[in-house]
Amino acid sequence: MINEFFKNIDKIPYEGPGSDNPLAFKYYNPEEKIGGKSLKEHLRFSLAYWHTLNGSGQDPFGVGTMLRPWLSISDPVEQAKARMTACFEIAEKLDMPFFCFHDRDIAPEGKTLRESNKILDEIVSHTAELMRYSSVKLLWGTANLFSNPRFVHGASTSPNADVFAYAAAQVKKALEITRELGGSNYVFWGGREGYETLLNTDMKLELDNLARFLRMAVDYAKEIGFTGQFLIEPKPKEPTKHQYDFDTATVYGFLKSHGLDEYFKVNIEMNHATLAYHTFQHELHFARINNFLGSLDVNQGDYLLGWDTDQFPTNLYETTLAMYEVIKNGGIAPGGLNFDAKVRRGSFEPEDIFIAHIAGMDALARGFKTAYKMVEDRKLDNFIEERYASYREGIGKDIVEGKVGFKELEEYILDKEVVQYKSGRQELLEAIVNQYI
Amino acid sequence: MINEFFKNIDKIPYEGPGSDNPLAFKYYNPEEKIGGKSLKEHLRFSLAYWHTLNGSGQDPFGVGTMLRPWLSISDPVEQAKARMTACFEIAEKLDMPFFCFHDRDIAPEGKTLRESNKILDEIVSHTAELMRYSSVKLLWGTANLFSNPRFVHGASTSPNADVFAYAAAQVKKALEITRELGGSNYVFWGGREGYETLLNTDMKLELDNLARFLRMAVDYAKEIGFTGQFLIEPKPKEPTKHQYDFDTATVYGFLKSHGLDEYFKVNIEMNHATLAYHTFQHELHFARINNFLGSLDVNQGDYLLGWDTDQFPTNLYETTLAMYEVIKNGGIAPGGLNFDAKVRRGSFEPEDIFIAHIAGMDALARGFKTAYKMVEDRKLDNFIEERYASYREGIGKDIVEGKVGFKELEEYILDKEVVQYKSGRQELLEAIVNQYI
Amino acid sequence: MINEFFKNIDKIPYEGPGSDNPLAFKYYNPEEKIGGKSLKEHLRFSLAYWHTLNGSGQDPFGVGTMLRPWLSISDPVEQAKARMTACFEIAEKLDMPFFCFHDRDIAPEGKTLRESNKILDEIVSHTAELMRYSSVKLLWGTANLFSNPRFVHGASTSPNADVFAYAAAQVKKALEITRELGGSNYVFWGGREGYETLLNTDMKLELDNLARFLRMAVDYAKEIGFTGQFLIEPKPKEPTKHQYDFDTATVYGFLKSHGLDEYFKVNIEMNHATLAYHTFQHELHFARINNFLGSLDVNQGDYLLGWDTDQFPTNLYETTLAMYEVIKNGGIAPGGLNFDAKVRRGSFEPEDIFIAHIAGMDALARGFKTAYKMVEDRKLDNFIEERYASYREGIGKDIVEGKVGFKELEEYILDKEVVQYKSGRQELLEAIVNQYI
Amino acid sequence: MINEFFKNIDKIPYEGPGSDNPLAFKYYNPEEKIGGKSLKEHLRFSLAYWHTLNGSGQDPFGVGTMLRPWLSISDPVEQAKARMTACFEIAEKLDMPFFCFHDRDIAPEGKTLRESNKILDEIVSHTAELMRYSSVKLLWGTANLFSNPRFVHGASTSPNADVFAYAAAQVKKALEITRELGGSNYVFWGGREGYETLLNTDMKLELDNLARFLRMAVDYAKEIGFTGQFLIEPKPKEPTKHQYDFDTATVYGFLKSHGLDEYFKVNIEMNHATLAYHTFQHELHFARINNFLGSLDVNQGDYLLGWDTDQFPTNLYETTLAMYEVIKNGGIAPGGLNFDAKVRRGSFEPEDIFIAHIAGMDALARGFKTAYKMVEDRKLDNFIEERYASYREGIGKDIVEGKVGFKELEEYILDKEVVQYKSGRQELLEAIVNQYI
Repeated sequence: MINEFFKNIDKIPYEGPGSDNPLAFKYYNPEEKIGGKSLKEHLRFSLAYWHTLNGSGQDPFGVGTMLRPWLSISDPVEQAKARMTACFEIAEKLDMPFFCFHDRDIAPEGKTLRESNKILDEIVSHTAELMRYSSVKLLWGTANLFSNPRFVHGASTSPNADVFAYAAAQVKKALEITRELGGSNYVFWGGREGYETLLNTDMKLELDNLARFLRMAVDYAKEIGFTGQFLIEPKPKEPTKHQYDFDTATVYGFLKSHGLDEYFKVNIEMNHATLAYHTFQHELHFARINNFLGSLDVNQGDYLLGWDTDQFPTNLYETTLAMYEVIKNGGIAPGGLNFDAKVRRGSFEPEDIFIAHIAGMDALARGFKTAYKMVEDRKLDNFIEERYASYREGIGKDIVEGKVGFKELEEYILDKEVVQYKSGRQELLEAIVNQYI
Repeated sequence: MINEFFKNIDKIPYEGPGSDNPLAFKYYNPEEKIGGKSLKEHLRFSLAYWHTLNGSGQDPFGVGTMLRPWLSISDPVEQAKARMTACFEIAEKLDMPFFCFHDRDIAPEGKTLRESNKILDEIVSHTAELMRYSSVKLLWGTANLFSNPRFVHGASTSPNADVFAYAAAQVKKALEITRELGGSNYVFWGGREGYETLLNTDMKLELDNLARFLRMAVDYAKEIGFTGQFLIEPKPKEPTKHQYDFDTATVYGFLKSHGLDEYFKVNIEMNHATLAYHTFQHELHFARINNFLGSLDVNQGDYLLGWDTDQFPTNLYETTLAMYEVIKNGGIAPGGLNFDAKVRRGSFEPEDIFIAHIAGMDALARGFKTAYKMVEDRKLDNFIEERYASYREGIGKDIVEGKVGFKELEEYILDKEVVQYKSGRQELLEAIVNQYI
Repeated sequence: MINEFFKNIDKIPYEGPGSDNPLAFKYYNPEEKIGGKSLKEHLRFSLAYWHTLNGSGQDPFGVGTMLRPWLSISDPVEQAKARMTACFEIAEKLDMPFFCFHDRDIAPEGKTLRESNKILDEIVSHTAELMRYSSVKLLWGTANLFSNPRFVHGASTSPNADVFAYAAAQVKKALEITRELGGSNYVFWGGREGYETLLNTDMKLELDNLARFLRMAVDYAKEIGFTGQFLIEPKPKEPTKHQYDFDTATVYGFLKSHGLDEYFKVNIEMNHATLAYHTFQHELHFARINNFLGSLDVNQGDYLLGWDTDQFPTNLYETTLAMYEVIKNGGIAPGGLNFDAKVRRGSFEPEDIFIAHIAGMDALARGFKTAYKMVEDRKLDNFIEERYASYREGIGKDIVEGKVGFKELEEYILDKEVVQYKSGRQELLEAIVNQYI
Repeated sequence: MINEFFKNIDKIPYEGPGSDNPLAFKYYNPEEKIGGKSLKEHLRFSLAYWHTLNGSGQDPFGVGTMLRPWLSISDPVEQAKARMTACFEIAEKLDMPFFCFHDRDIAPEGKTLRESNKILDEIVSHTAELMRYSSVKLLWGTANLFSNPRFVHGASTSPNADVFAYAAAQVKKALEITRELGGSNYVFWGGREGYETLLNTDMKLELDNLARFLRMAVDYAKEIGFTGQFLIEPKPKEPTKHQYDFDTATVYGFLKSHGLDEYFKVNIEMNHATLAYHTFQHELHFARINNFLGSLDVNQGDYLLGWDTDQFPTNLYETTLAMYEVIKNGGIAPGGLNFDAKVRRGSFEPEDIFIAHIAGMDALARGFKTAYKMVEDRKLDNFIEERYASYREGIGKDIVEGKVGFKELEEYILDKEVVQYKSGRQELLEAIVNQYI
């Protein structure tokens, strides 16, 4: 295990719910077996490179606050290597099986794309070397198509065709290195694919270009034999006023209408769900029943704030109901649970990195165990089955099987007084969930 | 012209922008010709029966306040006839060419559906009679599938198959009377098609049943020869926590995935758009470029309140940008602009009905005229054309025509420094819009 | 114990966390002693008459759904008596020590106020009789100054002086009956004290009139010897666009500026807090440190909906942190925890009344026990004490004691590099709270 | 007139509403006289240094985009001087009479405060020199107490007393230079005075320290003879989860309860108003009727986004109703209208600075002229006067004059049926406003 940047922090032990040790797991015991698999296998936790290694604490009102040991290295490439090493140190100490990155997270840009690719190759080699001695794997790769000023008006939806080309070439390279590092998935988060004002926007062309871009990615993946899962990550707003991948339902319609639905699933983020005024569970559920739930970005937002706060997930209701959907989905592999979360700007000490991940991993582990029991006990399932029983017999069965139309249904009901005699029992079900938590 | 309930109010004259007369149009001159058609033909205004004839001013914190002359008639059927007569009086005095209704708006329910249908027939006859002597037509009909307790858990998405049957029979009848009265459209607003909590909900079955229901409606319309346009009206929440027809993008995906997209367009309401955190223009634009913009419910919400306030539209930005989309759409027929708006609870005097409609009709007429000039002048179009020019030549043209993939694009860009040299000029475009208003 | 309307429901027993009985407490054991007092004494639960006895399930989109045994009684006064009897039956079966009401909840109105008062007296006598044989007490009374059309533009802030007079007379009577029934508090919830549009509003006069009204209430209470606590209940919006008692901070400023702060405390509702974009804990905390926390309306809202949903409180985070503030406040007496919550429209069966209250009482009892342990353990207190230690010595002490000004502070700091070396540890503290839950 | 950085841009001429010139005023004619004063005197426009000179276009998802001529100067002090020169060039070319700044906007920080002050002095001298030859004046100064990492947990509300001292010393200096440059006001915007989580916060101590800090500022201003107006700028959230100066009502209560109300007025920002779920007009109105409206930060937000977008104000409804309040206030001097607005990230060309300010200045000038006419015509005033007439005679007059209490009012109303016979006419008033716009 690497022990270079956080020497005063050991591998995080599991100490159980009674522990007072901030640097110990209370609920996440990686080796604990549930239903024949270890928690580690079930949860497929992943570290998010951008927040954890690159996050400075900068916000629109102030500069960075984070104290990070690698900041003293001034050469950008050397610092990039050190950050990657630190990434493995953190992941290993947290017993986290995966990490995720954008191309620009891990390596500085050069003046041209050719130059950038060269630097990237150097870091990728360093990463591959680290992976040889580590059990930490790549959950997914992606390309940063939003930070550089060239992407000010979008990438594949830019009004400038050269920018489209640049983005295409960047994703080409990102696909190659994701394959090279054995990544299981590749993610498209919309970045600045959206608009600021309709007054200057050709939305039709932009959406069509977005589809063209995704199609090219599918083609190129086939060409190079990248067989990982392709994921789109919905978000309704921020940075643009309107992001095209607004929510899972929007992405669903977009994929359907462009014939892309067989190639893409969704990577759903809790805070993006709530910014779209959905619950996390809603988004997961909708994706699940439409067979395109691919992976999760686990974090939490603040329901009273209107921007993406990317907090570490600690709300047990959120984690339990999310894990409920994951279990119902038959697990999340080849996707995983990626901590797209950043320590608060005021949590700037190095050990806060560990504390925050422990908080999140514990909350998700506890959520998983709670949800597992809920699924096993079938209290909710039984209630729902009973509630919809009328569609498994008589007129209900005929409806579901397409045997009746308006005329038959009118005949059936014309002289009947329909009584809606059953309560939905929302309060009871909420109380039952509380008994599990 | 009927003159029975509002004897002190004459046909509303057009007096121009300088008028101080509350009961005169300042901007809506029905006969004014623009581009070869009268404003009346362009705007296709419609009165919403439920708000204007049935709205009592009741809210969750208090009983009705509205002073309405027909409330002194105690027999429900006689009162219903009087209300319909009043509807025509109002529409005629406002020179409004259309009206819209739900089945239960115009006639009281009986104990069984058979009985309800009988009462409904009586009112429909009365309506047909009124239409013989009036130029007021039916823009669309619909069925109220949400007020009666039987619909407490939804209609076509109810867990109770008898409720599905009831709803089906009710829509069957509503389609028949819409055809009988020469309605140009039939609208499906989701009512309680949604959920309160996922804990008790089988969303998959409910969505599939919703699709089955719509399919039956299509089939039945074909059977009876109803050729009007079918419209779905999106709304994100209220009354249920989550409405299935969340927004236009959600409806689009739903229709696509259930093979229903060729049969349905959308009826978009401004206040529903903003409850879904979209601008009205966004929803109209998205529907337009996807060829499924069908009709508009014109009202406005309060951006700082979280429920459907259904106010009369007076914001000239909203009306101008909405009319901009309508004009770009080549007009809105066979749909129209339906005033799904209610006078404020504190505007309880009979003449407020006229004042409020005048306010809305004037704001839309002014918006239409402003937008028409904006479309004619092409300032926005020219800006956009110029902005996306790179897709009409060179590499951009190749992208659009599908001639290049990631490899060609990489080759093209690898050694090139992309400069994003053009401002989006949002502030300038907003100032230009102000010059038009 | 009364057993008349809910014969199939016995007194709700405490069965502990493992119970599957929907009609048993799992966490609320009324007699359980904590810190020398029973849970029943600590929590001071109260039933809200309006929701539980009068709530019909009506919403803006549909009529009532609730099945209630007393609805078969057609005489309004007899039905009112039956409802009051049922109120005692419910409270007793739930072992709930208090109830609360508005004047118009418990008795129908007559044509004049004199007549209304007469009917009210009859019901008050019936209530007093019930109280003789019951341990259930009155937590607070209030007057409904918002449902009748006369209050369409407000009560004490109405533009119509007669309406002010009517409201004054109604509160006079409500104070008298609250005193007569031994009520511990009297509550002012703003109803329609607010505005719909500034275009027609004299806000200065309205606010001054509101203050005059409250002053009259103080004077009259003194005159009749009512010594209960006076409470104002903040709410930011709904029914009016802007409610004058927006939040606790607004009420605080209003009371201060009108010299009323010694006479009033606040009754804080969770759902009103969140509608004002505050956490419930924030509002409780702000009131507590300003010594004007009086009572709680315990319910919960839906963070993703923009109206007052008044759900039964089941979120353990909310209940725990609320109870934390209550304990820090030294308890809530003479106030209490009033269930200003309604069963969902879909929970229309009579037993849902009990199920929902059990859900809420259990969640609050569990929250109280959790919070009590948190207060006892002092982990949060210790962290905070340590965090602000610099104000208990040296320059910090001088600041707090007013011994230094800008010049001294400049001198102290001018050549010093200030390092903010301490993390705020938000993630750790959230994880600690999870260990308690 | 300085002509150094924007050589291709002349002094912006007034060309009237028909102009197509992006670099001309269409509605703002500085010398146009209204009611005996020029528009320039009425509007007291001010340039915001931070956005216009320092704004880079950086956001949480990307680096800066702005093309600015002074960025090629690498020496920080020389660049700071150049920026100040550019500030005067912009203000002069726009005929803008004022500018505003934070200490750290205009000069880079040194290692210690002593060093920072020295650099600041150098820039202040340069500024004073520029002012000798310019008509541009300082509207207000302020101190940046939020960007440096030392303020991570707040400034005067920091848990670290040294940080309080640092902030105090910084404000001391900022007051001195504001006086030196003839500033008319000094502003306190809360920065990070608020909290992220109550779990680690001693709100009582923090609020008391905030009051101590403001008191020290008052004392020191007196000591050095600074007679400018002191202003607090409310904001509800961002950067912290909860900002202590939430809205005007909160600030009002805070000032009252700490005996500071005679020393402070408010500087109200439109986008901060809407983030607090108030209209801009509401905040201005509340401040005006409580005699503490001091100055305005004119910008606009996006009602559908949850963060501070600081857009240039172009909505004529907002500008008209804001100017209505300003006129009713008897003007805004010694405050002004400060453009706390930034060009969009996509409006990165130098001339967008001018275009955006023109858009805002035109919208406010048009709003002012519209509002002036509305005030002169008294249509709204007359409606309101008539609406509240009942308080100027009879029982209403007695209420206002304190001659009656609950008993007299009961006697007056007990047998009277109160009819609320007057509509509030919201729709009519909105239509009237439209006639003015």
